[in-house]
Amino acid sequence: MTGTVPQPSPRIRSWWGWGWADQHPDDAECRAMGAMLPGTLARPLPVPRVADLRIGAPAVQPPPSLAHVISADPAERAARAMGKAYRDIARALRGRPGRIPDLVARPATEQEVSDLLDWAGGQGVAVVPYGGGSSVTGGVEYRGDAHRAVLCLDLGAMGRVLEVDATGRAARIQAGTLGPSLEQQLRPHGLTLRHFPQSFEFSSLGGWLATRAGGHYATGRTHIDEFVQSLRVVTPAGVSASWRLPASGAGPSPDRLFLGSEGALGVITEAWVRLQDRPVHKASASVAFGAFADALDAVRLIAQSDLMPANCRLLDSGEAALAGAAQDGSAVLVLGFESADAPVTDLLARAVEVARSCGGRPADASGAAGGDAAVGAWRAAFLRMPYLRDGLARMGAVAETFETAATWDRIPGLIEAVRTEVGTAALKATGHPATVNCRLTHVYPDGAAPYFTVLAAGRPGEEAAVWDELKAVAGEVLHRYGATVTHHHAVGRDHRPGYDLQRPEPFALALRAAKTALDPRGILNPGVLVD
Amino acid sequence: MTGTVPQPSPRIRSWWGWGWADQHPDDAECRAMGAMLPGTLARPLPVPRVADLRIGAPAVQPPPSLAHVISADPAERAARAMGKAYRDIARALRGRPGRIPDLVARPATEQEVSDLLDWAGGQGVAVVPYGGGSSVTGGVEYRGDAHRAVLCLDLGAMGRVLEVDATGRAARIQAGTLGPSLEQQLRPHGLTLRHFPQSFEFSSLGGWLATRAGGHYATGRTHIDEFVQSLRVVTPAGVSASWRLPASGAGPSPDRLFLGSEGALGVITEAWVRLQDRPVHKASASVAFGAFADALDAVRLIAQSDLMPANCRLLDSGEAALAGAAQDGSAVLVLGFESADAPVTDLLARAVEVARSCGGRPADASGAAGGDAAVGAWRAAFLRMPYLRDGLARMGAVAETFETAATWDRIPGLIEAVRTEVGTAALKATGHPATVNCRLTHVYPDGAAPYFTVLAAGRPGEEAAVWDELKAVAGEVLHRYGATVTHHHAVGRDHRPGYDLQRPEPFALALRAAKTALDPRGILNPGVLVD
Repeated sequence: MTGTVPQPSPRIRSWWGWGWADQHPDDAECRAMGAMLPGTLARPLPVPRVADLRIGAPAVQPPPSLAHVISADPAERAARAMGKAYRDIARALRGRPGRIPDLVARPATEQEVSDLLDWAGGQGVAVVPYGGGSSVTGGVEYRGDAHRAVLCLDLGAMGRVLEVDATGRAARIQAGTLGPSLEQQLRPHGLTLRHFPQSFEFSSLGGWLATRAGGHYATGRTHIDEFVQSLRVVTPAGVSASWRLPASGAGPSPDRLFLGSEGALGVITEAWVRLQDRPVHKASASVAFGAFADALDAVRLIAQSDLMPANCRLLDSGEAALAGAAQDGSAVLVLGFESADAPVTDLLARAVEVARSCGGRPADASGAAGGDAAVGAWRAAFLRMPYLRDGLARMGAVAETFETAATWDRIPGLIEAVRTEVGTAALKATGHPATVNCRLTHVYPDGAAPYFTVLAAGRPGEEAAVWDELKAVAGEVLHRYGATVTHHHAVGRDHRPGYDLQRPEPFALALRAAKTALDPRGILNPGVLVD
Repeated sequence: MTGTVPQPSPRIRSWWGWGWADQHPDDAECRAMGAMLPGTLARPLPVPRVADLRIGAPAVQPPPSLAHVISADPAERAARAMGKAYRDIARALRGRPGRIPDLVARPATEQEVSDLLDWAGGQGVAVVPYGGGSSVTGGVEYRGDAHRAVLCLDLGAMGRVLEVDATGRAARIQAGTLGPSLEQQLRPHGLTLRHFPQSFEFSSLGGWLATRAGGHYATGRTHIDEFVQSLRVVTPAGVSASWRLPASGAGPSPDRLFLGSEGALGVITEAWVRLQDRPVHKASASVAFGAFADALDAVRLIAQSDLMPANCRLLDSGEAALAGAAQDGSAVLVLGFESADAPVTDLLARAVEVARSCGGRPADASGAAGGDAAVGAWRAAFLRMPYLRDGLARMGAVAETFETAATWDRIPGLIEAVRTEVGTAALKATGHPATVNCRLTHVYPDGAAPYFTVLAAGRPGEEAAVWDELKAVAGEVLHRYGATVTHHHAVGRDHRPGYDLQRPEPFALALRAAKTALDPRGILNPGVLVD
């Protein structure tokens, strides 16, 4: 048992943008970024204020028995109206956020979660489960008007590591635990989950589980799914508690039904997760490639080897330039190995050698442990990126990412088609050329996960609409290439059209039936996954 | 595309026992085995004959449009009445097999599978999907009388590798393909699935997928689940075809609903599976331990390292003696590494060193590549074991295995409790002491999969009942220790009581709803997983 509940940070979260309010670029930085992108505004849009929103009184009153965990405070409600996708930011900047929830609940116990669902079911109130609020797919934003009111169910008060099994390297952790607190609570035990999505600071274990988040490892156990021993999920039909097991073959996996269920089937309240010893051996390197096709070959061969790098990210030339990893038009492969167990320099050397055999140029002549300046540059840029995106949004630009995965045979054509067709669509939509960059974030023996960054001009006042147009074009390309609508960002509401095409219809029948069985009143995150 | 449909083997399969009829021990061998086990019969039970069974005319006639794929031949029907569990063998030996299906269908196309389901649905005929027939949990045996007739849906005519993606190391394979044929068809491409369950010769890809079979690898990708890119499943509500993807985060995994569905939700007709290059580097060794507890520590540390042995099987002293791996009361750890990529002798040496540090004695002084006589002995015994079991069954003995998985904290107590309580129950049930051995077949950072062998006297004419009594005791122990009802043998009908206790009730609600949506007439493998 760990002792204390982690204290809330005194730093202020941005209600409308990514992360910490004090980390946002100032007006001068925004202008400097805007100047690099043709067709943006002359001056930044003002930082939006909650006070400028029209926030009505809640349509329902909380029951007295739950009043102590429910707030109707306008600022708390406004901050939880949407996730943190570009289209959320763009709408907030234009004073048009999504529907603001009537109430925000912060239960501290599973019983309170259960009571909240009972109450909401009886009242016809939609319940939107909320972890760190970092959804970039409309996962935490109620849309429509089929419910009497909307309750944001914020799990932030359930943020403790409850139990640690040091011998079996596992811990029972509450779903509302945010990344940094989770690692901080594990640290005294010498253990780590090592799940480090870009949203790490602002996303929760429950959110990771509900969205099948992709994490730290570029190969092997890429998704949080692989780290789940068992789940507790509160559904309107009761609490689903799976057994804590290293593996099982007893029927379809209960946990796999709730992993990726995005709050539509139940509220994940805690999980036993598998942990690692903290790595003590690390080595990283970067390798530049003149030809992207050569880099793809190298990455595939590394993914098909036994090497299993923790990091194996391939930045195309545009992405490498943006990240400061290369300015000469090279693509850059960032390789990292880590182990709690044994030195990894030989593994790194083997991976670098594979890359070299495909035409890669290691960043230093030895090709081994050194030469990782590009790695550091990439990492810093990676964490800063969402803040810069919001700065660009203030300049009226369109700045967003999306991701997918496909088998190797489709990867080159897919990437090229996205670049070309989204670029063409952006030019047509805005009259200005756009930047479409690509990196591979996760790689597999049989395919890879490309992650695209789009930087384009907007149309003043219609920035979100421009993005929706570009995203629709991207969605068509993904569908044509049989590439998944999402590798690790989840379906949410924004990906529903593509998801509905991708999902086998008999599976949709089964999922709808499961939803009806578990949530007969249809209150759980309506619009997500199934209608 | 591979060229030809594999030809059926001219060898004769046993209709009542494991595998090939000509591999069964003869009467003299049976007597010799029986003599080692107190309380067995003086002479073997006769090999049962189909001609001695009363097999009635089918209760339904096949429709003319499907008559070409349907047989009412008594021998074909009798051979598919049950799987190959001990209790199936024991019942056959006493002339009391399970319900014999009315008809056997061998469709050659997905359309024929679909047509068969349509016809069966209209007629109220139960459909039991059938791959290699090696179920040891009652998975292919209809029980009850709620249906007008029973159709065995044998996928044996769908046995081809349809497509190979050599670059992405994957293949599209029909579900009825048996292990040896599958590997034989992949061999010209230099690829291998490397899924080698004990039933390899007599089990099919579709069966592996439907039962979440455990395979070759003792660590990491232990189950067939991990090798699935996509599935095609014929359900009464239509064909579910998932996309071929290396990974996805789009909602709950469609494939994971059908993996382990045991024919209750649909008939798996084909899958894209991930393959490996054929390994060229191999090394194996065995390590003896005086104390089983020390061996458990060693196995846990190896499972928690980065080493990822392909084989990491721990035999307790009884199992080691039976397998001829040690006769001095030692437990034996069998370690094997393999790679297509790089030498593995260093990995083996590191694993052996971990074992040595826990008190293990490598089979040769160098502790590295040599000393694998025990490995060979174990492997030969492993494949011969089911035939010997049937020989013991002919001597009226109870000889069966069962398996589970649990977290490390529960493993020592669980194993000891199974040994003690099943041994006590056997003595009480038969008046003779029993042998209860254990090996670990698959190991994980957070737990392990113990596999138990029980050798006991029977009660003449009640052998299956004795086993049921012992299995019930075992099931109680597993439940008390939170150990899964099955790690890789599936639930079938024999494990239903334990499964119903283990499965979270809200998940059961969802699964029943999914079953009703996909199989509204309740014809698919009735009694498996849900009622």
